[in-house]
Amino acid sequence: MTTHRIEALTDGIFAIAMTLLVLTLVLPEAGKELAEVHSLLLGQIDKFFNYALSFVLLAIFWIRHHQQFHLIKRTDGKHLWINIFFLMFVALMPFSTSLVGDYSREPLAEVFFGLNIFMLGMFLSWNWVYATNHHRLVDPSLDPWSIALGTKRGMITMLVAVLAIGLAFVDPRISSFAYLLIPILYGVLGYRHRRMTEGAA
Amino acid sequence: MTTHRIEALTDGIFAIAMTLLVLTLVLPEAGKELAEVHSLLLGQIDKFFNYALSFVLLAIFWIRHHQQFHLIKRTDGKHLWINIFFLMFVALMPFSTSLVGDYSREPLAEVFFGLNIFMLGMFLSWNWVYATNHHRLVDPSLDPWSIALGTKRGMITMLVAVLAIGLAFVDPRISSFAYLLIPILYGVLGYRHRRMTEGAA
Amino acid sequence: MTTHRIEALTDGIFAIAMTLLVLTLVLPEAGKELAEVHSLLLGQIDKFFNYALSFVLLAIFWIRHHQQFHLIKRTDGKHLWINIFFLMFVALMPFSTSLVGDYSREPLAEVFFGLNIFMLGMFLSWNWVYATNHHRLVDPSLDPWSIALGTKRGMITMLVAVLAIGLAFVDPRISSFAYLLIPILYGVLGYRHRRMTEGAA
Amino acid sequence: MTTHRIEALTDGIFAIAMTLLVLTLVLPEAGKELAEVHSLLLGQIDKFFNYALSFVLLAIFWIRHHQQFHLIKRTDGKHLWINIFFLMFVALMPFSTSLVGDYSREPLAEVFFGLNIFMLGMFLSWNWVYATNHHRLVDPSLDPWSIALGTKRGMITMLVAVLAIGLAFVDPRISSFAYLLIPILYGVLGYRHRRMTEGAA
Repeated sequence: MTTHRIEALTDGIFAIAMTLLVLTLVLPEAGKELAEVHSLLLGQIDKFFNYALSFVLLAIFWIRHHQQFHLIKRTDGKHLWINIFFLMFVALMPFSTSLVGDYSREPLAEVFFGLNIFMLGMFLSWNWVYATNHHRLVDPSLDPWSIALGTKRGMITMLVAVLAIGLAFVDPRISSFAYLLIPILYGVLGYRHRRMTEGAA
Repeated sequence: MTTHRIEALTDGIFAIAMTLLVLTLVLPEAGKELAEVHSLLLGQIDKFFNYALSFVLLAIFWIRHHQQFHLIKRTDGKHLWINIFFLMFVALMPFSTSLVGDYSREPLAEVFFGLNIFMLGMFLSWNWVYATNHHRLVDPSLDPWSIALGTKRGMITMLVAVLAIGLAFVDPRISSFAYLLIPILYGVLGYRHRRMTEGAA
Repeated sequence: MTTHRIEALTDGIFAIAMTLLVLTLVLPEAGKELAEVHSLLLGQIDKFFNYALSFVLLAIFWIRHHQQFHLIKRTDGKHLWINIFFLMFVALMPFSTSLVGDYSREPLAEVFFGLNIFMLGMFLSWNWVYATNHHRLVDPSLDPWSIALGTKRGMITMLVAVLAIGLAFVDPRISSFAYLLIPILYGVLGYRHRRMTEGAA
Repeated sequence: MTTHRIEALTDGIFAIAMTLLVLTLVLPEAGKELAEVHSLLLGQIDKFFNYALSFVLLAIFWIRHHQQFHLIKRTDGKHLWINIFFLMFVALMPFSTSLVGDYSREPLAEVFFGLNIFMLGMFLSWNWVYATNHHRLVDPSLDPWSIALGTKRGMITMLVAVLAIGLAFVDPRISSFAYLLIPILYGVLGYRHRRMTEGAA
């Protein structure tokens, strides 16, 4: 089975989930005064931050999926289902983002959001480990460094999600900031990877 | 007429229907206390189960559609319309899922959901029977075992939907669990099929 | 400029508009009794009919767009904009369908819906006339019968919309049924066309 | 890395954002009288204008993206992220359009809308300047006139957004009309460009 249509479904679900995030922003009700509009927009700076954070996190997962499928040459039944469970948690992100936007001070909301990110990281890592194990679904010539890079990125996502869940119990307001570690650590990994091997995707 | 654009429309409608399922989950209203958030999340475990169930059922139909169109080489006017009515019931799934989530104890809601699944099964079976009859839209060399496998899968879906509708009158809370038979029976069928003939898609 | 991406945008907008139609159906509020659920579902049979009608009408326009672009080989700036205004009225369909579902007895709602269909018919006809005039964007060998067929189909859509708008002032409840003439007249046209010339798309 | 999948994600997000704009239109509540429906539809002529304006603006950005990627042959990590931030502001458009539709007389709403357009213009210009700088991601033979045309179009968008933000403080009701300058000035630029060089995309 080729990977063309699972990629199309994935791009569709990512596009919709990323656009539905905007529904987490609260519109002022018609008939309010200017002063209230002003305060309503300022009052949801948290929500704008959450919107941007979830958009960027989904984009990171989309790019990783893109990079993995650039190297994955075919799919099978089990691999398809790992992807579908991954997509189930992609589609859940607008709900998790709303929850954390409405309850930025409640640990429970941050834990829910953290679990969503953890599941995304887990299924995407499983996707990669399953595909590269014995070069099952990738090119036999794929080098071990690129395989290891994908695996390490998956572990980083899961570890950061665990850290953010832990921070939620200390102070829920700083929990979200932990996710900024993901792009930073990816950058460091990518830099070290490029120094080791040129030409990997 | 080629099948390229009906596949693109299908992937789009599936992606949107699968993502809109998340709108069936109820967000706690802003301003609620932590205790209420806690109970609200726990209180809709049913809804999370329904979300996951509908997502998986839609994924099963999407995979079957994918498998059929992998073998269907062209389309015609009637075939296009069978697909469009199939898509009409795909797009109805967020409504049916909401209904059954809000009324998990009412037989009527489960019957409505069961009818939706039945129609999905019926139109997808019709799609397959129409396309393979006299090898109308498939490769002339397609073996009879693969044709029969597709037909049997369609019958399983419809039979399970009828069973679930019947169970709705016995106890609506167990009706949904009947759908778990679909992946199990598909697995059994696929296993027997692989033993009979290697190389089918 | 090639037509690949305008086709992708079109498929996307059609898929979303067709799926958003489901939001015109009213869910019973949580906490209602079974009897009320029963009457609520029965009470919106009109809405289910409108949902199916709009879905089928959008599918007809999608198929016509598909058929036109099967023959249209390239695009230019003006042609792109005709398509974008067409898509603007595709995206308006969930609104028009809601309006007519909520006010099935008000002529004004039916007039609004009729105007939406008229604009869809007009822009799609314009698309075809512009593309085929002096064979501007189609193959020079495209036969005059196929060109005339596309033009006649466009005129049928606009005439039926005008008829439905007129009927709205006589009895708004029968206005919607006029649209059933579109598939019937298309069928007649297509039959006559096939008798005149074999092999047209 | 090829540009295929970022184009697919872009087409998806544009299609959804353009279709979600329709949710900014307010449906009359069920049970209202005809007279109220009439006045409700007339009363939101502003909103219909905003719907059409945002749809056309998004279409202009989509066409520019299309034209740029027609010439951009490959992508890299930084280029991907410029595109993702561009898409973040595409997905924000239904929110900005709702805001300006509900508060057409408040400067703050128009400023928010203007900033959204400005950011879209800025990221799309950055996309182009980054890709064409030293012919980084475009064909080495791409002529300087086409590169300059893309850059000038980006500057026009940003300047018009600044003008509209300025007008918002003079009279918010006329601010939106400033955006009509974008297609007009693009037309002028395109005409001059065609006179200078034939054959650019």
